[in-house]
Amino acid sequence: MSSSDLLLELSHKAMQLLQEDANKIETLIQVQMENLATRKCPLYEEVLDTQMYGLSREIDFAVRAGLLEEADGKQLLAKLERNLAQLYEALAINQNASS
Amino acid sequence: MSSSDLLLELSHKAMQLLQEDANKIETLIQVQMENLATRKCPLYEEVLDTQMYGLSREIDFAVRAGLLEEADGKQLLAKLERNLAQLYEALAINQNASS
Repeated sequence: MSSSDLLLELSHKAMQLLQEDANKIETLIQVQMENLATRKCPLYEEVLDTQMYGLSREIDFAVRAGLLEEADGKQLLAKLERNLAQLYEALAINQNASS
Repeated sequence: MSSSDLLLELSHKAMQLLQEDANKIETLIQVQMENLATRKCPLYEEVLDTQMYGLSREIDFAVRAGLLEEADGKQLLAKLERNLAQLYEALAINQNASS
């Protein structure tokens, strides 16, 4: 295997791993969205924040290690942040409606 | 550059980055150790825990990405954890002495 092929393979692998971790957070957001009406777990917000922080550190590391373009990392995080903002908005509306 | 040279270079770079992050935590621990007698910042513990979590996620990612041996990652974390345990012990002794 040539060195450029290897770099491509490692970068692909890195992106795949980050995407897996992003998907896990996505699922956490989805589950909480579906449970809006029934129950609200107060720890959800903290768990999500922690997971987002963990992912951002992984992305930052991958960029510094030369396996990921900074723009791709930012895009991955930005997408999750939009979903997270939607969840928090829905939570706030739900809280106002029930109070 | 051959692909094995590239992998070696990337692995070396990864270890260097992780060591840098570990050193930052080490400095945080050191600073708090030196300030034991004068003042105690209640947020220190939380900052250190967060930084340790961030580093553990980076190490985990580097192992999964094939850039780091699992044993080397564990060793890096274990060393910091020992220092952290010493700090917490010193904090506890200091607290008992002043109460």
